[in-house]
Amino acid sequence: MVEIVSSIEAVAGFKAAGVHCGLKKDDRLDLALIVSDCSCAAAGVFTTNQLQAAPVRYDQKLLRRGSASVRAVIVNTGSANACTGPQGDENARATAQYVAERVGCTADEVLVLSTGVIGTQLPMDKIRAGIAQAAGALGDNWQAAAQAIMTTDTRPKLASVTVTDAGGVYQIAGITKGAGMIAPNMATMLGVIVTDAALSPSQAQAALSAGVAVSYNQIVVDGDMSPNDTVLLLANGASGVKPDVDVFQQALTALCERLAQAIVRDGEGATKFIALEVRRASDDAAARKIAHTIATSALVKTAFYGSDANWGRIIAAAGRSGVPFDPSRAQLQMASAVNGRRQAVLLFNAGVPADYSEALAAAIIGAPDVQVTLDCGLGSGEATVWTCDLSHDYVTINGAYRT
Amino acid sequence: MVEIVSSIEAVAGFKAAGVHCGLKKDDRLDLALIVSDCSCAAAGVFTTNQLQAAPVRYDQKLLRRGSASVRAVIVNTGSANACTGPQGDENARATAQYVAERVGCTADEVLVLSTGVIGTQLPMDKIRAGIAQAAGALGDNWQAAAQAIMTTDTRPKLASVTVTDAGGVYQIAGITKGAGMIAPNMATMLGVIVTDAALSPSQAQAALSAGVAVSYNQIVVDGDMSPNDTVLLLANGASGVKPDVDVFQQALTALCERLAQAIVRDGEGATKFIALEVRRASDDAAARKIAHTIATSALVKTAFYGSDANWGRIIAAAGRSGVPFDPSRAQLQMASAVNGRRQAVLLFNAGVPADYSEALAAAIIGAPDVQVTLDCGLGSGEATVWTCDLSHDYVTINGAYRT
Repeated sequence: MVEIVSSIEAVAGFKAAGVHCGLKKDDRLDLALIVSDCSCAAAGVFTTNQLQAAPVRYDQKLLRRGSASVRAVIVNTGSANACTGPQGDENARATAQYVAERVGCTADEVLVLSTGVIGTQLPMDKIRAGIAQAAGALGDNWQAAAQAIMTTDTRPKLASVTVTDAGGVYQIAGITKGAGMIAPNMATMLGVIVTDAALSPSQAQAALSAGVAVSYNQIVVDGDMSPNDTVLLLANGASGVKPDVDVFQQALTALCERLAQAIVRDGEGATKFIALEVRRASDDAAARKIAHTIATSALVKTAFYGSDANWGRIIAAAGRSGVPFDPSRAQLQMASAVNGRRQAVLLFNAGVPADYSEALAAAIIGAPDVQVTLDCGLGSGEATVWTCDLSHDYVTINGAYRT
Repeated sequence: MVEIVSSIEAVAGFKAAGVHCGLKKDDRLDLALIVSDCSCAAAGVFTTNQLQAAPVRYDQKLLRRGSASVRAVIVNTGSANACTGPQGDENARATAQYVAERVGCTADEVLVLSTGVIGTQLPMDKIRAGIAQAAGALGDNWQAAAQAIMTTDTRPKLASVTVTDAGGVYQIAGITKGAGMIAPNMATMLGVIVTDAALSPSQAQAALSAGVAVSYNQIVVDGDMSPNDTVLLLANGASGVKPDVDVFQQALTALCERLAQAIVRDGEGATKFIALEVRRASDDAAARKIAHTIATSALVKTAFYGSDANWGRIIAAAGRSGVPFDPSRAQLQMASAVNGRRQAVLLFNAGVPADYSEALAAAIIGAPDVQVTLDCGLGSGEATVWTCDLSHDYVTINGAYRT
C-alpha cells in the first residue's frame, strides 16, 4: 500500500513557483511555473471537447513528436485562451518562448496550460512580467503553485507519495484545480504531476492514461466539459530509479484518485461528496451511461443538497439513460458514516420501495460523504462516478462568474 | 391562421371539474375529472422512460386496443403511482372503476393520469371521495381542472382555439401541467386535450403525435424525464364536424405549442424563456443533440440566470455534445426585444468572439424572452428547443420537494 499525503515537500530536480501578476482582479496568486533541472519524459491527457483551447493544441502538437524533452510547465489563470483564433495560438507559443528564455531551454521544451474565461486574449505584458517574477521565485513552493492555478476553487489541491521499490526510493507529486465544468473525459480541470522516477515517454503516457481513466475521468461536478482540460505527467529521472511498472502505476493511480476526489469535494457550491457505483448493468458502457445520467441530473443533485433520500429521482434518471434498465430487477442502496459507524439502507428493491426507516435514510444521506450503489441485476457492467450536490452556491457562483 | 387563447369557455359534450380531496397538504385543488357525454376517439403520447408509472401502463394497454370508446379522464396529484408494484396497477384500475361507476360507463372507458411523488401508493379512500365530489361538480370548470392538476406549477395552464373550416365550426381545448423534470420526449408533464370535432382513433393518434413532436417534445426545463409523462387527445365529435385534416393539424399543433411553452415559462424557478435554434448542423439528429446539450448545461442555464452573455459556455457545450461541431465554422447570435424593439447581436463568429457591444449583449440577454441561434455551418440539420434558466429558486424547490 502506498500512502498519499495532501502536501508536497520536495521532488528531486523539480522547482515550483506561484506568483501574482495581475491576471486575477484581487491580489491572489495567478501564475504558476514548474521547472525541471533536467529533461523530462512527458505525457498528457487532454479534453475531448471539439472546442480546444490554444494551449491544448500547442501541447498536443509538442507531445505528439514523442521526443522526451520537456523542461517546464507554465500555467496562467484569468483567461482560457480558447476561441482566440491565430492570435491565441501565437500567444501560447510566445508564453512558452518567454519561459524558455528565463529557464534556458527552447520553447519546444515548455508546456503551456491556461484556465479562465473563454474568448479573451492573454494579456501578454502581464504574462511576460509574471514569468520573469516566477522564474526568480523557483523553489519548493508547491503550495504557492497550487494556489496560483485556482479559479473558483476554494482551496489548493496537492498530493504526493513516496515510493520504495527494489530499485530505490522515488517521489510522485501533483497539483490540480477544478471546481466547476467537471465531467468525465476531463473538464475545466488542470493537473500537473511530476516524478523523479525515470520513465520513457511511452511508459509515462501509458501510466498517465491508465491512472486518469479511473480517477479524473470518473468525476462529475456539473456535466460540463471545458476546452482546456489537461493532466500532464513529467518524469525527470533525478532519483535514478527505474521503477517497477506495476508499483508505479499503483502509486500514480492512487495519487490521481486523491487529486480528482479533491476536485469534487471542492466542487462549486458542493456540500456533499457522493460516490456512485453502478453494478450489474448490461455492460460497462451502459453502467457508465447510467452513472453519468444520475450524476448530472439536476433533480438528483438538488435532492442530495436537501438531504432528501429521494430514490425515485435516481431510478427515474436511470430509466431515461437510453441504455437497458429494468426497475423490476434493480436495487438501490445508500451508505455513510452515521455517529461514527458505517450504516447502510436499502431504499428500492425489485420495482418497489424497500421497507426502510425514513429516519435512518435521512441520517445516512445527511452525512457529507455518501456511497450510493445501484445494482441493475442485468449483466456484469460496472462503473463508478464521484460527484457532488447542486446547491444555491453553485447558482450564485455561475450566475455571476464573469462579473 | 388560428387564434389561440389562454382560456377555455366550453367544448360541446365535455364537462370538467377540479376539487380538493386531501391529496395536497393544504386546501388546494388536487383532483381533476373530465367527462364526455358521448364516446370519444382517444390517442396518447407517453414517456419513453423505462421506468413507467402504473397509470401509463394502464392507459397504454387501454389505447392499444384501438377501439374508439373513452368517456373520461381522471387526474390525481400527490402521488405519481410509480414504483408501486402490482398494488399500483390495481389502484390505477380501481380509480378508473370508481369513475366509471359515477359516470355510468365501464372502467375500460376511463383514462387515468397521476403526478406527484414516486414510490407512494395512492390513498384510495381520498381518491374515491374525491371522484364522488368531482362527479357532482362537473360543468364548464376548466380553470378549476387546470388548477387541480398543478404540482409545483405556479399558475394553471389552459388554452383553446375555435376553428372554422368548410365543414363547420369546432373547438380544441387543452389543460397541461409541468414545471420540473421536463425534457424532450416528455417529462413530469401531463396534458389533456379535448375536441368536439369528429376523428377516428388513428386520425387522433397521428395528429397528436405530430403536434407533440414539435411542441412538448422540444421543451427542456432540467433534462430530467418522469415515469408519468402523458398527453392525451379525446375527440367526441359533438360538433358534428369532420375536420379538414390539415387545418385540424395546424390548429392542434399551435395549441400544443402554446401549452408546451407555458410549461417552460413556468419552469421551476425560471426567470427567462429561451428559444434555442440550432441551424446547419450535420443532420437533424445532430442538431437536436447539440440543442439538448446546450439546454441542459448547468453552466449555460446559470449564465442565463445571471443575464451573462457567456457565449463561451454555449460553444463549449456544443463542442462536447458528441456530434460533429467545428467552432471555426460556427456563428452564435442572440436576439430579444430591448426597449420595445427587436435587437440582435452576433457574439461568436468562425472560432473567435465577434466584435460586439457588451452593453447591447447585456441588454439583449437581460430580457425575459431570448432567442439564441447557433449556426453550425456544416450541413442542413435543424432543431429548436424551448428552455429556461437555472435559478436559486430551482434549487430551493427541488432541494425540499418531499418535505
